[in-house]
Amino acid sequence: MHKGESTRQRIIEQAAPIFNQHGYAGCSMHDVMEATGLEKGGLYRHFSTKEELAAEAFRYSLSKSMKLRTDNLDRSHGALQTLRAFIERFVETTTFLRGGCPLLNTAVDADDGNPVLRELAREAFRDWRERLARIVKEGMRSGEIRESANPRLIANTIIAALEGALMMSRLEGNKTALKDAQAALDGVLNCLAR
Amino acid sequence: MHKGESTRQRIIEQAAPIFNQHGYAGCSMHDVMEATGLEKGGLYRHFSTKEELAAEAFRYSLSKSMKLRTDNLDRSHGALQTLRAFIERFVETTTFLRGGCPLLNTAVDADDGNPVLRELAREAFRDWRERLARIVKEGMRSGEIRESANPRLIANTIIAALEGALMMSRLEGNKTALKDAQAALDGVLNCLAR
Repeated sequence: MHKGESTRQRIIEQAAPIFNQHGYAGCSMHDVMEATGLEKGGLYRHFSTKEELAAEAFRYSLSKSMKLRTDNLDRSHGALQTLRAFIERFVETTTFLRGGCPLLNTAVDADDGNPVLRELAREAFRDWRERLARIVKEGMRSGEIRESANPRLIANTIIAALEGALMMSRLEGNKTALKDAQAALDGVLNCLAR
Repeated sequence: MHKGESTRQRIIEQAAPIFNQHGYAGCSMHDVMEATGLEKGGLYRHFSTKEELAAEAFRYSLSKSMKLRTDNLDRSHGALQTLRAFIERFVETTTFLRGGCPLLNTAVDADDGNPVLRELAREAFRDWRERLARIVKEGMRSGEIRESANPRLIANTIIAALEGALMMSRLEGNKTALKDAQAALDGVLNCLAR
């Protein structure tokens, strides 16, 4: 990697947890300068605005979190078991990044704020929903899941319950809300079986 | 009301949507001065710190939102119907306050930030969970809900799914995620009937 590129990458990686923890409005370029040890000129050579850096930092946090949550999921036992494995992974891997789920944080931070971050968060939810809905559709095609199932509704419900429970668990400092959501979603999935 | 008290109350009411929309870090005392038209001295006569004002603004937003979400719910048709009415009310009344649900916003904003706001958000979730769990327990006592039900799990799942779906709906600018969560929760409640 070129030196300029590696500095740029280092800035993104060091800025990501700061933006994730403090939000777009709560994190300044000055905070990033302190974290990276760069002078103003050095930082602005790579990112001309806070918005540009925040977008790159969010992309980085997001790809890291999606990788952790979906890589190498065991898909060999059918659609329902794949969804259960995904849910379990989400419940188990909540603390990899300082500040919690970057998607939840950015969604709440940007819902009536920064339009670039908002669009990135929208895309991320769309991708996530489509990925889960595809698993449901596979289960419907294979005859594992009943035909009356609504893939979008199931995907939205899994995401909503997990993100809401993560928010509660982080606030309360324990996994009760996440474990409760996992058990309830397990019941929802059981009802989908043909 | 004493003039000082009414000014104090006006500051709280005008600051509440600003904090709700921009978060604790994203809202300054200067923003509040602009919104209220007060000079620095006038504002600091009533609130010596931003933290103090933010806590009062959150209490105000929260009581307003809880009132709207739970007042005059029809409880005459049993526990399950009361829970359904609560869920429907939540789905229908999402836009009363600029910036969305104050509890969700503050939970995400304060989970690793301001300890006073964090404690207020924790209390609010505890109250909310206990209120919903109490309805489930009443249904168990009356024989409407099966005895193996877990009141805390049901309450946590309703709150998590609704808050997560609200976050997605606000981001996406439509009610699909909320309606999907409502339908899924309806299925969960149907499974609780004896």
